[in-house]
Amino acid sequence: MRKTSPKTLSILGGALSLCLATAVAADTLQEVMKARNLTEQNVIAAAKTYVPSGGRDEFVAFSSGGQSGQVIVYGIPSMRLLKYIGVFTPEPWQGYGFDAESKAVLDEGRIDGRDITWGDTHHPALSETDGVYDGQFLFINDKSNPRIAVIDLKDFETKQIVVNPLLRNEHGGAFVTPNTDYIIEGSQYPTPLGHEFAPLSDFNEKYRGAITYWKFNREKGRIEPENSFAVEVPPYSQDLSDAGKVASDGWSFTNSFCSERYVGGIESGRPPFEAGCSQKDTDLMHVINWRKAEQLFKEGKAKKVNGMAVIPIDLAAKEGVLFLIPEPKSPHGVDVSPDGKYIIVSGKLDSHTWVFSWDKIKGLIDRKEYAEKDPYGIPVLDMQKSLHKQVEVGLGPLHTQYDKTPCVVYTSVYVDSQVTKWNYCEGKVLDTVPVHYNIGHLMTMEGDSREPQGKYLVAMNKLAIDRFNPVGPLHPQSHQLIDISGPKMQVLYDMPVPLGEPHYVVAIRASKLKPEVRYKIGTDSRSGEQSPYATRAGSERIERSGKTVHVYGTLIRSHITPEIIEVNEGDEVFVHLTNQERAQDQTHGFTVGSYNVNLSVEPGKTATAHFVADKSGVYPYYCTEFCSALHLEMEGYLMVLPKGGTKDQAKMKEGATYAKADYDKQVEQCTATQKVIDSVVGFITSHNYKDFPLVVGMVEDATDQLNFAVGPKKKAEDAATAQDWQNATLWAQQWFLYQVKTADIGLRAKAYLEQNGAKLVTVPAKK
Amino acid sequence: MRKTSPKTLSILGGALSLCLATAVAADTLQEVMKARNLTEQNVIAAAKTYVPSGGRDEFVAFSSGGQSGQVIVYGIPSMRLLKYIGVFTPEPWQGYGFDAESKAVLDEGRIDGRDITWGDTHHPALSETDGVYDGQFLFINDKSNPRIAVIDLKDFETKQIVVNPLLRNEHGGAFVTPNTDYIIEGSQYPTPLGHEFAPLSDFNEKYRGAITYWKFNREKGRIEPENSFAVEVPPYSQDLSDAGKVASDGWSFTNSFCSERYVGGIESGRPPFEAGCSQKDTDLMHVINWRKAEQLFKEGKAKKVNGMAVIPIDLAAKEGVLFLIPEPKSPHGVDVSPDGKYIIVSGKLDSHTWVFSWDKIKGLIDRKEYAEKDPYGIPVLDMQKSLHKQVEVGLGPLHTQYDKTPCVVYTSVYVDSQVTKWNYCEGKVLDTVPVHYNIGHLMTMEGDSREPQGKYLVAMNKLAIDRFNPVGPLHPQSHQLIDISGPKMQVLYDMPVPLGEPHYVVAIRASKLKPEVRYKIGTDSRSGEQSPYATRAGSERIERSGKTVHVYGTLIRSHITPEIIEVNEGDEVFVHLTNQERAQDQTHGFTVGSYNVNLSVEPGKTATAHFVADKSGVYPYYCTEFCSALHLEMEGYLMVLPKGGTKDQAKMKEGATYAKADYDKQVEQCTATQKVIDSVVGFITSHNYKDFPLVVGMVEDATDQLNFAVGPKKKAEDAATAQDWQNATLWAQQWFLYQVKTADIGLRAKAYLEQNGAKLVTVPAKK
Repeated sequence: MRKTSPKTLSILGGALSLCLATAVAADTLQEVMKARNLTEQNVIAAAKTYVPSGGRDEFVAFSSGGQSGQVIVYGIPSMRLLKYIGVFTPEPWQGYGFDAESKAVLDEGRIDGRDITWGDTHHPALSETDGVYDGQFLFINDKSNPRIAVIDLKDFETKQIVVNPLLRNEHGGAFVTPNTDYIIEGSQYPTPLGHEFAPLSDFNEKYRGAITYWKFNREKGRIEPENSFAVEVPPYSQDLSDAGKVASDGWSFTNSFCSERYVGGIESGRPPFEAGCSQKDTDLMHVINWRKAEQLFKEGKAKKVNGMAVIPIDLAAKEGVLFLIPEPKSPHGVDVSPDGKYIIVSGKLDSHTWVFSWDKIKGLIDRKEYAEKDPYGIPVLDMQKSLHKQVEVGLGPLHTQYDKTPCVVYTSVYVDSQVTKWNYCEGKVLDTVPVHYNIGHLMTMEGDSREPQGKYLVAMNKLAIDRFNPVGPLHPQSHQLIDISGPKMQVLYDMPVPLGEPHYVVAIRASKLKPEVRYKIGTDSRSGEQSPYATRAGSERIERSGKTVHVYGTLIRSHITPEIIEVNEGDEVFVHLTNQERAQDQTHGFTVGSYNVNLSVEPGKTATAHFVADKSGVYPYYCTEFCSALHLEMEGYLMVLPKGGTKDQAKMKEGATYAKADYDKQVEQCTATQKVIDSVVGFITSHNYKDFPLVVGMVEDATDQLNFAVGPKKKAEDAATAQDWQNATLWAQQWFLYQVKTADIGLRAKAYLEQNGAKLVTVPAKK
Repeated sequence: MRKTSPKTLSILGGALSLCLATAVAADTLQEVMKARNLTEQNVIAAAKTYVPSGGRDEFVAFSSGGQSGQVIVYGIPSMRLLKYIGVFTPEPWQGYGFDAESKAVLDEGRIDGRDITWGDTHHPALSETDGVYDGQFLFINDKSNPRIAVIDLKDFETKQIVVNPLLRNEHGGAFVTPNTDYIIEGSQYPTPLGHEFAPLSDFNEKYRGAITYWKFNREKGRIEPENSFAVEVPPYSQDLSDAGKVASDGWSFTNSFCSERYVGGIESGRPPFEAGCSQKDTDLMHVINWRKAEQLFKEGKAKKVNGMAVIPIDLAAKEGVLFLIPEPKSPHGVDVSPDGKYIIVSGKLDSHTWVFSWDKIKGLIDRKEYAEKDPYGIPVLDMQKSLHKQVEVGLGPLHTQYDKTPCVVYTSVYVDSQVTKWNYCEGKVLDTVPVHYNIGHLMTMEGDSREPQGKYLVAMNKLAIDRFNPVGPLHPQSHQLIDISGPKMQVLYDMPVPLGEPHYVVAIRASKLKPEVRYKIGTDSRSGEQSPYATRAGSERIERSGKTVHVYGTLIRSHITPEIIEVNEGDEVFVHLTNQERAQDQTHGFTVGSYNVNLSVEPGKTATAHFVADKSGVYPYYCTEFCSALHLEMEGYLMVLPKGGTKDQAKMKEGATYAKADYDKQVEQCTATQKVIDSVVGFITSHNYKDFPLVVGMVEDATDQLNFAVGPKKKAEDAATAQDWQNATLWAQQWFLYQVKTADIGLRAKAYLEQNGAKLVTVPAKK
């Protein structure tokens, strides 16, 4: 026998236990590896990313959806997609853009009176407190239609959209200042500010960019346009931004990519934009003292352009608000170090990444030591005097993120399709790893905050080509998870993105997120206020005023109240529905066929459908969420009476009739079911169920359901007394259905306790 | 030392190799398990689902998105989401509902002149040949707005939407007949047929359902409404359908859940629908001889209702088209066995699943042995005489799928939150496994076809509750992957569904799908024809006729031709763009800010943006897909001239000017870059690159790019001859950019060859 070292032996001991002796799975790991052609490295990668059934991910990522106009939420390391949040694009599963409440949010994003039914989302930003992610809010920009959206992480819903009145598009947003006082939105392609027209021959004179600082009111959870301002900048095609922090707090940085100010025209024989915009060796980084700009704004020195306060270039230059520094050409990413002392910029058409020193920049500014002024009178600092290092990281470097380890960073390298790990203090490359293919941005855990968490990196590759099962000419994007915990980077997982073209992602430690699972009953979730249309069970009603009909209804397992709505052809109808459920995940939907009505009403929420009933007919409505065993029966009829028609006065004819025997049989079933419920209750209460918050919630819900049974039971008994066997039988059935709902939850709770090792604490009393 | 059996030793040998000695990852599996708190069973599950970087899944699943209105595509066993296909809901990433071509598809789905911007998708169906999935088409229904959509699996795009002119909603579709002759669409909530009005007091007399058989023309890839027909059925609230096959070919089955014909009205004191619709012990299965119905239709015996041919109930009853059989109450799922000899029906409110025998049913029909007639004169067969078995599978059984092993099936059990594996020939339960929570449908690989593939099962759970990182009140759905290859079922993976509420899924062996990666240049992908607006490079133009402007443009890395478009305020503008790329995954996007213009143009596609330029101003446009290193420079300007304004006559002023030295420097760079290209080409051609189809494609693309460099090079040289250093420099830059694109692809090809073990076949010639 071969000699084995003690260390190998201990590994052998561990590995030995991998062959399972249980009856559950006869497979050994080795058999699975052989059958699925997995290498040992594959198995380790699988084990590093797999989150077992019911488990949680350590980090939660928020990705822009690109032109899908949404935000994508996923878990790390499992790379499981958790949610698409509707932001700029209507999304029916969430009812987003379908209920009147969310339509009001989307309406804030109208431009020139036009609905914009999508957005080109690029850069999400998490709210920060003292430069550290606090898990409260998420902000995201729309590049094509210059807008910023606010998402509340209490419920993962979009609450506000603001339109930039200066710009026609943007790119360098959303980035937040260290205490989320401001959300930065930087322009991209120059236009005349304020939506004016000017011919292209006036490009240098009349076209401009602007860096906007949107004031955020954290308590209200809303941007305040009236307290926001912008700094005018030259037509240099601004690109990405970042806020200074710690050492550089109060400043922000925005780079540019066509400081040549070139205007193409290939159709008329001019060289195209791509040639004219990448000719010079350097572009210009904008260095902005936003705190000084804020002061000028507060002093009333800004001028108003299309309603927005703007610090003009000349004032900015004169007052020490705006500076420029040459940077590598066509850069993408201007990334401030956790201590705020360095700014790393990569030029896509330069193989070097440049490390700027904030100390040096600040020194030059303080000493007013300018190399020159640009054509607009803005002081330009000397590049060499501002630089700490230039480091060769590969062809086409793009974006840099910070590691937990000081001085260590990761840069995405587009042309070489790789990630380069390097030390920016010493200017030394440490490692590279190939990615597939043509990486754009990359992201480390909380890697653009003051406290990067290390551990994982996500490569956002722009081409997937052959990496996944083929799905036609339009390929999914490819995000690769990379383990950065060791000295060598290791690709763990390839995730296809099934919808959207993400540009940038931010990831937060999952434990910082504390979303709610229900609303206070009657909440308009978009305003965060009690809805004026909130309705409690028992107070449902239909109110008519002229041709306007307001329906105040409720939703609960498994019926919609009212079940019949009669309106006249041509009526304007508002259906306000309040979900009466308290139970987690007990969402109800609502649709009226053919009228484009579709709501998602989570527990406690009040939502409104609004439509004109312009064609007579019979329109079934129903709950669209498979909410309960009786889900299909959660239905109703909208009767749109023809013009000149009259209200149905006839009595409803019964399709099936019931006699005393039916009632007795139903009561018998109820009695038997109650015994099942009692036994389940006995099991639960005899165990330490109070140690399981989820089960406590279930018990609460089950109790609700059983309480609901009281009413129908009484109605059944009253009808029986009156020998009305039809109603007696059906109300007894309804009593039974509440029992079924109780049992459903009870059985789920019991199974949960059994599966999670609940302990017997008291012996259930014998019946 | 303890004795070990030879088998254990061999496992030890295998396990030993799990501790990696390489420098890449110092971790051992044991360390990872400890750090991540994984059990041995977890690691086996991980290994059974993990697909390594660049690997492929064995099966591809197509899931309905529920009220998201889309189809979700994912891989099995990795459970990675591959694509959301826009079907009934506009989706901007795909340009679906934004380009004129796809708007035409969505317009087919308008109802009563109204845009329906979502759908409630429930049941996808794959096309079949002889009862076996053939991978050609996918069909999906819209429950709320009765529609069927056709998706071509050549490009995963929606090609057609048909509206059912009889119904106001539906449920029992899409299901295909064994050769995809017909797509079945069954009604749900009864209404007067043909969109008429009738009061609810006429429910029994005037409300009806209908089972529609949409004729599918496989060559055209389109449904033919004029060759389609429906069978009228009573107001029994039809539920799911399935087509007979093999033994039962020519027949179809549809169940029902409110054969009580109850109409609720809780708001006026009547017991709710849920009570009245679940009172009887049985509902009614509809058994339809569709081949006989087709014959009657072809003989002209159908009557037209709102344009659709309908076989009335009396004719259907008389001609032996329609029969009824009592089935367990409130069922969901009527699932025909692979040999067509059994039909399995589960009643949600019955703990038994019922196995009907086709032989027995057919015998009763052939002998005209009817138990009774229903109130509409339809023959009702005796339940007991039709039954093969009744098997107790748990509380709330729902849907059944077939295993590869004969007689073995899996049934989803809603209230008990479990999957039950059982033998329907012998009526014996074999195994159960808990799922989380409240499972709706379930699905095995090709499990509703004539040739189920076994191996995996997916549980579509309706409640996720606590299973994933929390994301607010609206939870993701939860799909669990279950290994069914052994005697005991084993849960392998929990997948959250981030968008939509899937109802049913179908999965096909991945190797049967052969989608294309590009279109023939100039294709209107929605019609499948050459677009009348197809444009080749060099023939770009702007045509104006009155106030209508047609732009014929092209897209290629990295410019849009034209780069400047001038129109007058109020013009109606059509921008037709053709993607000139041949390279896989080289999609370009196109947006004009503020005008809600957004296209996704895959290689070869022609797509059209249509808008009215109703507000003067300067509107940048750009490519929305990060397509190349010069992606940001892929831009242009739409100039909307103010009314009364005049066309810009001034010469463009240059922001930067260039001299001979700039030109010389640029040429020097081009010469150096060409050397890099030559060395990459040398590497590639000296290896067996032709054995790698992906690399062959890349070489083709790289050759294209290098050929594109010829024109700019000549322009640069001509300008230099004329001493026009501005144009000489910029065209030389463009020449260089094509070199960069060539090098980008070449380096990717080189890396691919290196990473995939290409062999040196010839020694590159020395330069």
